[in-house]
Amino acid sequence: MDKLISRSAQLDMLRRGFSRRSLARAAALLGAGAALPFYNEPALAQLSNIGRLPPDAVKINANENPLGPCPEALEAIARAARNGGRYQYEETSDFVNLLASVEGLKPDHVMPFAGSSDPLHRVILAFTSKTQPLVMADPGYEAGQRAAAFVGSQVIRVPLRKDYAHDVRAMAAAHPTPGVFYICNPNNPTGTVTPREDIEWLVKNKPAGSIVLLDEAYIHFTEEPAGSDLVAAGKDVIILRTFSKLYGMAGLRAGAAFGRPDLLEKLRGFSAGALPVTGMVAASASLRVKNLVPERRKYLREIREDIFEWLEKNRFSYVPSVSNKFMVDVKRPGQEVVREMAARKVYIGRVWPAWPTHVRVSIGTREEMEKFKAAFLEVMS
Amino acid sequence: MDKLISRSAQLDMLRRGFSRRSLARAAALLGAGAALPFYNEPALAQLSNIGRLPPDAVKINANENPLGPCPEALEAIARAARNGGRYQYEETSDFVNLLASVEGLKPDHVMPFAGSSDPLHRVILAFTSKTQPLVMADPGYEAGQRAAAFVGSQVIRVPLRKDYAHDVRAMAAAHPTPGVFYICNPNNPTGTVTPREDIEWLVKNKPAGSIVLLDEAYIHFTEEPAGSDLVAAGKDVIILRTFSKLYGMAGLRAGAAFGRPDLLEKLRGFSAGALPVTGMVAASASLRVKNLVPERRKYLREIREDIFEWLEKNRFSYVPSVSNKFMVDVKRPGQEVVREMAARKVYIGRVWPAWPTHVRVSIGTREEMEKFKAAFLEVMS
Repeated sequence: MDKLISRSAQLDMLRRGFSRRSLARAAALLGAGAALPFYNEPALAQLSNIGRLPPDAVKINANENPLGPCPEALEAIARAARNGGRYQYEETSDFVNLLASVEGLKPDHVMPFAGSSDPLHRVILAFTSKTQPLVMADPGYEAGQRAAAFVGSQVIRVPLRKDYAHDVRAMAAAHPTPGVFYICNPNNPTGTVTPREDIEWLVKNKPAGSIVLLDEAYIHFTEEPAGSDLVAAGKDVIILRTFSKLYGMAGLRAGAAFGRPDLLEKLRGFSAGALPVTGMVAASASLRVKNLVPERRKYLREIREDIFEWLEKNRFSYVPSVSNKFMVDVKRPGQEVVREMAARKVYIGRVWPAWPTHVRVSIGTREEMEKFKAAFLEVMS
Repeated sequence: MDKLISRSAQLDMLRRGFSRRSLARAAALLGAGAALPFYNEPALAQLSNIGRLPPDAVKINANENPLGPCPEALEAIARAARNGGRYQYEETSDFVNLLASVEGLKPDHVMPFAGSSDPLHRVILAFTSKTQPLVMADPGYEAGQRAAAFVGSQVIRVPLRKDYAHDVRAMAAAHPTPGVFYICNPNNPTGTVTPREDIEWLVKNKPAGSIVLLDEAYIHFTEEPAGSDLVAAGKDVIILRTFSKLYGMAGLRAGAAFGRPDLLEKLRGFSAGALPVTGMVAASASLRVKNLVPERRKYLREIREDIFEWLEKNRFSYVPSVSNKFMVDVKRPGQEVVREMAARKVYIGRVWPAWPTHVRVSIGTREEMEKFKAAFLEVMS
């Protein structure tokens, strides 16, 4: 256990009421992480079962936004919560209408969700099958794999190109009857962009009967064009959006799927129930704040540029991300570095099997990244 | 349209920015309600698309709690929202552990959800099929029907007994290979109880391979024993709980399914994603408030007793509910009365096809029920 969580951190946690047994469990989970097939954001919930991280932990492991929700969102939440005895379906309708108008879509092309994990999961359930695989990038965001496993669909992983874009030509050729082409743009974990012309090429040239699932969870961090116009044009495209990232609402839950009504309709049957009104009103309030996106994009970009400059100065090898996380090559089993960083209370992201010596690091505040730098130098020296 | 929404209410709505076309749509939906196969709480969302109800509307149509969340829940929401940039999975774990300890269950027998509609839907998806029907009461809560339709399962409706309990013997005999026996206790819409010994009889005598789905959304309004001990004893029972009703958290979304881990595991694959932290912390805070349940139960009971006394005095025929809603027999097509009440800005619940002359009325505040009385006398005279 000593290797995983420092003695002082252990003492801290014991003082705060965690048992030695739960600490051992935490250490085991941290260690086992890389080997688990579905070790992704939701799987971190397991880790959380042991209790909270130390209060001075640097949490740059889950692509969260340290800025949190904007003040306008917090005000909206307080109002909606006071009226929380009511379902307030009208707030969900308002959110749909507002988001549709922002994106230039008809409201019936926007389906609201509590985040984007749910529609991601449902798209895989609805559009893949034993004979229609999920085709995705490697490394890519793995959450869809769990849905594929549930319906018994094959998952075909196609390596990213050398420029870290999705290799759409190789993806299109990967299987004769694909179900879903999953493109996360910018990609998670690499934070790299797949050019618009490649996405258009795939939409045009993919085998009939398949759809392109364009996960734009991180699109707001870039200046890249979003894909909403492909949906408006009636293409076989479903787009995922979340308010968890740039909008700083990971815990509050708001998101949407954009698509033709006939495609969205296939997602409806897997679940039911009202959406959290707190997430809906916070999302609407955030959409109404002028300049929120460019200001937060700039904030993040400056910290990212600073950390990249520092990595270069210290001759570390990294992938040039345009998002709120990046991959750095630690030139040894990444999981060792994850553990040694955690022992210094700096919690970085996980390792992808395809790139075993890279670790994913989310971008926190300037202060948090200074702590990252100090710990990383120690661990890497 | 005049028959559906009063002229002054129309003017009110027009002044608040609703178009004449959206008013017509609202009127059409109100009118069509009784005929729609799945006209239930979530379907009200459609209605909400036309905008908000007038500010002085009496909203006793969705079994909401006019008290809303308790102050402790609101405080917890404010704290969690400020930290809303983080997923805060640990709050969901805390909620599970706390609820499990309150119910005398192991934490692995409690699966958290954003309300109980989601697990209700998933249980039907997981445990019914084309050859294993859903068996439910008539009238009963219809939400499960939509899930059954999605998987192509038959729905068998068994009339309530004369004492308004579920007829568990007739339900058990209804089909040779049932999938799910759905028992809402107390029942929605009738607010009536199925005695514990009947539930035990069904659990013991149901055909093998089926499960009993015990929906306890309204259990806190009664003094009836809950079914948690059946789950603890390892029976083929899944229990649904929600914080939408007594706890006044309909818009905030928190709930749970209780069951053996092997049963709960079957629900997992249909969706994914973090739960709204605002709902989780509000639920935990509510569970920690001593006497919240008995105090709110008493508040509701006193208003219910008053309205029943008034109904008797005025010789109206009603079903003796022990919950936060009741059925009253209007001796003519119920939908007419729903419309005429709405024209007086008193929005009551819907009509069940099995009981076409009954309307469901949720119990609001004393002030709201006085407005109900006045409007009801007008409409019924």
